[in-house]
Amino acid sequence: MKKPYILVVNDDGITAPGIKALIEVSKELGDVVVVAPDKPQSGMGHAVTFNSTLHLNKTKVMGVTGYACSGTPVDCVKIAVNKLLNKKPDLIVSGINHGANSSINVIYSGTMSAAVEGALQNIPSVGFSLLDHSIDANFDAAKVIAKKIIANMIENQMPKDVCLNVNIPNVSMDLIAGIKVCRQAIGNWEEDYDERKDPQGRTYYWLSGKFVVNDNGTDSDEWALAHNYVSVVPVKHDITNYEHLEKIKLFEHD
Amino acid sequence: MKKPYILVVNDDGITAPGIKALIEVSKELGDVVVVAPDKPQSGMGHAVTFNSTLHLNKTKVMGVTGYACSGTPVDCVKIAVNKLLNKKPDLIVSGINHGANSSINVIYSGTMSAAVEGALQNIPSVGFSLLDHSIDANFDAAKVIAKKIIANMIENQMPKDVCLNVNIPNVSMDLIAGIKVCRQAIGNWEEDYDERKDPQGRTYYWLSGKFVVNDNGTDSDEWALAHNYVSVVPVKHDITNYEHLEKIKLFEHD
Repeated sequence: MKKPYILVVNDDGITAPGIKALIEVSKELGDVVVVAPDKPQSGMGHAVTFNSTLHLNKTKVMGVTGYACSGTPVDCVKIAVNKLLNKKPDLIVSGINHGANSSINVIYSGTMSAAVEGALQNIPSVGFSLLDHSIDANFDAAKVIAKKIIANMIENQMPKDVCLNVNIPNVSMDLIAGIKVCRQAIGNWEEDYDERKDPQGRTYYWLSGKFVVNDNGTDSDEWALAHNYVSVVPVKHDITNYEHLEKIKLFEHD
Repeated sequence: MKKPYILVVNDDGITAPGIKALIEVSKELGDVVVVAPDKPQSGMGHAVTFNSTLHLNKTKVMGVTGYACSGTPVDCVKIAVNKLLNKKPDLIVSGINHGANSSINVIYSGTMSAAVEGALQNIPSVGFSLLDHSIDANFDAAKVIAKKIIANMIENQMPKDVCLNVNIPNVSMDLIAGIKVCRQAIGNWEEDYDERKDPQGRTYYWLSGKFVVNDNGTDSDEWALAHNYVSVVPVKHDITNYEHLEKIKLFEHD
């Protein structure tokens, strides 16, 4: 079989330890190119740059050709696929994110928006996140899991618009219970803003809050992660709420 | 009936003509407060600010109390609901956006991400977009439509997590064919990047491209808009691809 051509992206920036872990395993499975933000871009969601310019700086990461991009994770995918690369990648892998992107966090996540954008470009894509925010997180188990899932995606014919959200418990490999295919759990942030004064006496705010799972199902990503399973949620970009369609039909006649 | 409390947001910024049009009609239907970005935030998707600070400047817009927020559209909703306002809004209205947010553009749109965030906060929300990008767009018909739909949302019990994506053709009121409840059309951007040199000889890029509809259905928002209907698409924040769930079950066993 021809070696697959793999584009590696992330949202923590091209120098983050997480992307190095992902490049390491991707290199064992295919030909790799890296296009990743030149600075941290967490929480950027599906932001795209069209009112300002983008810059690319060619570099090497883990022995592989890489480009540090001045834009968002979505920009990285768009410019890689539509301008920079001479051929279309067979697979886009995003991460490994420092921190969880389970439940509703998928919509805020730059890591996952890069993967969603990949699927929009008709390239099977996957985002990986480790449940450890720290810069010195241990990616040993995450690397084994990521390699297994990427190999699976390569071996099994994936629909071109497939996008997987993979979250990995922060435990050693022997404690991982297995891989569970899940739906996104129902959850929300109980948010607050910490109010402070700057040296000039002006008020400013910091977002704070805690994440709350409102879901008792055993088929959700949060359940899987709480039981030391790796969660795999397929993600879509048609966000029509088909269940609400009928309820609002009355808008047509009023 | 008690007057509803309506939060008005947008992504074009608090000084945009579109938000003034929306404030004007919202004032006729309820008590209004405005929290909107202090600068244009188009294409910001669901970006949220947690690695830097937020600032709010109190102001008046169209005779109503407003706050210019240094963050994204999603930040505006979060800080309004969780910090700034003394009571929870009954309804969040976003826009009126200068330009379409139909089909896949819903996921890039700051206007729609603000509305999605409203639904995530359990507040019925709606985003309005007029199919005219220009700063001097004519909002006359859009105001009539927006008022009708907001009144409908107030009168009819909406589920708390309802989020509507309303796009309005750029024609006069007498040419509008009606209101159609639709699904999001299948479409994609055929993108390119215009490559240029800055005065120092460094390469930079501008995103360009054209939007292509790949959908022959007569139940999509693109069909409705092409036939001068106002499109109303209910939007959800569970982006699990339930159709793919079974296909990737094999990941559990390999």
